[in-house]
Amino acid sequence: MNLKRFFPITEWLPQYRLDTLNQDMLAAVIVTIMLIPQSLAYAMLAGLPPEVGLYASIAPLILYAVFGSSRTLAVGPVAVISLMTAVAAGQLAQQGTPEYIGAVLILTLLSGLMLTLMGLLRLGFLANFLSHPVISGFITASGIIIAASQLKHLFGVQISGHHLPELLMSLIHEIQHTNTPTLLLGLASLLFLYATRAGLQSLLVKIGLNHYLAGMLTKTAPILAVVITTWITFHYRLDLQGVAVVGQIPSGLPSLSLPSIDPGMWQQLWMGALLISLVGFVESVSVGQTLAAKRRQRIDPDQELIGLGASNLGAAISSGMPVTGGFSRSVVNFDAGAQTPAAGAFTALGIIFATLWLTPLIAYLPLATLAATIIVAVLSLVDFKAILHTYHYSGSDFSAMLATILVTLGAGVEAGIIVGVLLSILIHLYRTSRPHSAIIGRVSGTEHFRNIDRHSVETNPGIAILRVDESLYFANARYLEDRVAALVKHQSELKHLVLACQAINHIDASALESLETINERLKEADICLHFAEIKGPVMDRLNNVKFFDHINGRVFLSTFDAWKYLTH
Amino acid sequence: MNLKRFFPITEWLPQYRLDTLNQDMLAAVIVTIMLIPQSLAYAMLAGLPPEVGLYASIAPLILYAVFGSSRTLAVGPVAVISLMTAVAAGQLAQQGTPEYIGAVLILTLLSGLMLTLMGLLRLGFLANFLSHPVISGFITASGIIIAASQLKHLFGVQISGHHLPELLMSLIHEIQHTNTPTLLLGLASLLFLYATRAGLQSLLVKIGLNHYLAGMLTKTAPILAVVITTWITFHYRLDLQGVAVVGQIPSGLPSLSLPSIDPGMWQQLWMGALLISLVGFVESVSVGQTLAAKRRQRIDPDQELIGLGASNLGAAISSGMPVTGGFSRSVVNFDAGAQTPAAGAFTALGIIFATLWLTPLIAYLPLATLAATIIVAVLSLVDFKAILHTYHYSGSDFSAMLATILVTLGAGVEAGIIVGVLLSILIHLYRTSRPHSAIIGRVSGTEHFRNIDRHSVETNPGIAILRVDESLYFANARYLEDRVAALVKHQSELKHLVLACQAINHIDASALESLETINERLKEADICLHFAEIKGPVMDRLNNVKFFDHINGRVFLSTFDAWKYLTH
Repeated sequence: MNLKRFFPITEWLPQYRLDTLNQDMLAAVIVTIMLIPQSLAYAMLAGLPPEVGLYASIAPLILYAVFGSSRTLAVGPVAVISLMTAVAAGQLAQQGTPEYIGAVLILTLLSGLMLTLMGLLRLGFLANFLSHPVISGFITASGIIIAASQLKHLFGVQISGHHLPELLMSLIHEIQHTNTPTLLLGLASLLFLYATRAGLQSLLVKIGLNHYLAGMLTKTAPILAVVITTWITFHYRLDLQGVAVVGQIPSGLPSLSLPSIDPGMWQQLWMGALLISLVGFVESVSVGQTLAAKRRQRIDPDQELIGLGASNLGAAISSGMPVTGGFSRSVVNFDAGAQTPAAGAFTALGIIFATLWLTPLIAYLPLATLAATIIVAVLSLVDFKAILHTYHYSGSDFSAMLATILVTLGAGVEAGIIVGVLLSILIHLYRTSRPHSAIIGRVSGTEHFRNIDRHSVETNPGIAILRVDESLYFANARYLEDRVAALVKHQSELKHLVLACQAINHIDASALESLETINERLKEADICLHFAEIKGPVMDRLNNVKFFDHINGRVFLSTFDAWKYLTH
Repeated sequence: MNLKRFFPITEWLPQYRLDTLNQDMLAAVIVTIMLIPQSLAYAMLAGLPPEVGLYASIAPLILYAVFGSSRTLAVGPVAVISLMTAVAAGQLAQQGTPEYIGAVLILTLLSGLMLTLMGLLRLGFLANFLSHPVISGFITASGIIIAASQLKHLFGVQISGHHLPELLMSLIHEIQHTNTPTLLLGLASLLFLYATRAGLQSLLVKIGLNHYLAGMLTKTAPILAVVITTWITFHYRLDLQGVAVVGQIPSGLPSLSLPSIDPGMWQQLWMGALLISLVGFVESVSVGQTLAAKRRQRIDPDQELIGLGASNLGAAISSGMPVTGGFSRSVVNFDAGAQTPAAGAFTALGIIFATLWLTPLIAYLPLATLAATIIVAVLSLVDFKAILHTYHYSGSDFSAMLATILVTLGAGVEAGIIVGVLLSILIHLYRTSRPHSAIIGRVSGTEHFRNIDRHSVETNPGIAILRVDESLYFANARYLEDRVAALVKHQSELKHLVLACQAINHIDASALESLETINERLKEADICLHFAEIKGPVMDRLNNVKFFDHINGRVFLSTFDAWKYLTH
């Protein structure tokens, strides 16, 4: 029974029916058509031979169908993860070498192991470290870097670099060597893809197609660009005029093998693998949850980690590359009517078919076309509206976002995400380090107590009631010490300090120490420290260490009780 | 007026009176006697010539008197900071070389710059990162390492290492070369120091001395040990029998010079300098605040940063080493009646006197005696009671503490503190990532709403009221999405979800995004999202981005209003 939890397939497979089969197969056909050019393109983006992209779209999809908790997530190579793969593996080896492919496989394996382990240990909350401004800024900056990195294929020149200044400088240097046929093919593809994305769907609806069919046809436009430009290149032998093409791809299924177990390489790649895992997971979960919600379904983030982990382990042993759930592809899968993860398995069958029989046909596919599909795909990731939105909402969140964007653009993806995460945590700790607190007094004739600065309330020079509106923990424990010290200094007749604890859900060991210190200091100054409105769980914990045995005051159920007793 | 804030001396100097002068001078004499052996010993611990300890007890004390905000803090070299100095500088150069001394000066300068900058930018909250379990575990582990590192002087052998396994293995190897006179002197000093610490004060009180005088005499016992063992070593020329001694110390004041401005070395030392700054600051502030509170005074943490920063800058340009406020020394200063930081300046005068005229007398001071004073001092830092206390209070805080201790002992001080800090933050984020939340229902006949799992309350299958007892931010934003998704899945007739926000003090950009996502998803599922009891500042911020324009529900002042409206 308990094991079943780890195999979501056991939930849907027993009830699998013929009409579900039909729906899943139709979705699979559409996703396959969309996935073929994407796989090739993202393998190229990751600096890998194009067939690796296809390989990474077989085993992972089948494994996700068994272990994944989303019904409609379509996994495979995606743009941002491919860029991160290129950066991480590029630190160890040169693109085009067997060592580079080996490094990518280790990265995939590590990422698979990390995701699976995080899932088994229920560590999904680790992804929370990637706050929204950071992930959103990171994706935008990555999109820009990816687009810039593809300009080389569009112009038919050699440029290199992992961040924007490098890429642009390199392009300016090399632009004189532009290959005109390549640029023309690339620009034509770019225009075609933009035009179809912008207007094809409404055009098709206008000429009488129904909305659904028009949408599906529009999504398969990239395959049309592939077919047309491949045919042109083949027919006019543009490859002889300097147009770079995909070339001969080995047909047949990937061989199974275990990546190298080299501790030195593992040590150099673990950070890259961790970032790839977290970013991939966050993106997958957000797509998965959005789609699940539309059908009142739900995904389990910890099981999702296991699903993605299994997918990556599958990719690692079948000559693939890191995979995760892709946004546009999952939406197409959902819209095309996929009902179960079986659609993913059928997609894998489609890719197997392509790998076995279609690869000879794409030898003349220009790299410029693939670059165009990448550019169109990633520029939709660039979200300036989100940046503006964050700017209007919160200055500090915006600063974390801006830092992420600038560091990612200027120093690369790994530095960008690390700076963003650290800054988010810093901002959060700073924000909670000075919690809202108020000296409160009694609203005459009632049992209510309110901020003395905002309301006209009863006070007493010998008594101060301090209400802190936040749990007490290491980041704000010392603030409380300061607050009390200031209070004692300024209210010279003070004899009783009451801490009103209605908003305190937790007191950690640092805050406990601070409370003990405050108690000691107040004792020295002949002031009693009282407590009121302590919540049950907080009280239990304090009683565990006999905190109140040493307190120079009393514990009251309510603030009013304290007031009555102290002013009697 | 505003500049005065940065010069606390302007507060007390104008009112300086003759009786204050007397009190400060008496305290200064006692602290000087205590500080001489400590300075020499901590310089030795830091791997520096003994005179450096004296130099570091001159300029820093005078500068602290001008810039420090504590009236009674006694700054100078302290044990833990000396150990951290040895570790950080040891990564760059060999002890005993001019490069090593250069590295220590850069470390001191960097630490001074960082502290001053943090003070000017009011970044004192950064010290909050060092949670109590981490700092307490770190100090305990450092004490053990320091004691172990001093065994070499006690046995008169050569051992090396920066963490416990290294030190102990090295000692086992070398113990056969033990120098017997050294060991005898060392053990005698150790016994003497322990005995005086444990029993001298009560003995002196018994034979008729008053409590205060007995206490002061006890604190000066180390100088007695120094005098006696120096005399024995000189008289019997034990140095010729292999007893290591301090040797000739250059007499005279330190020369003033600027540490080297070498970007490469700065880059390698900044992390060490940061950790030294933070640990030193935390220790100083906690001593300073405790002493200030006894006289109903207060210290300003940000000004304290400037005071410590100035002290370290002073040490850096006067051939010194990193300094901070010492615990035992400050307590002695306070107990001896110091009233103002002038006591510190007078102590500096005492050390100048020692540097000019007493240094020839300590040429025969055995290193074993200094080692004994260090061991006795640091073993009082080892606080097993605090470990047990934390264990009883909170398992997660205890795990952070234990990790800090084990990593510090096993891998050194820098790794220990970094692991501890990261683990504390992780634990905090985990703790708040699943905030307490409850579905609430109406207590019949009242306007109160309570947890439906704990109270018998009115509910309605079409309505769910969710109360979250924590501010919403990146660590728990996705939890909220999950919580709502689960709710929607299980309450199939749900039409209205009300978020009761009385406990929410802040919503960050990540949580805003999650709320928008939840709203979108609920819209798809034909469920309205309502809000109740939003606090003023939270409301203002949400209005800034026109959040409620897109919400598929209404905003109510109170939960009861929402209930009335939805059930009317």
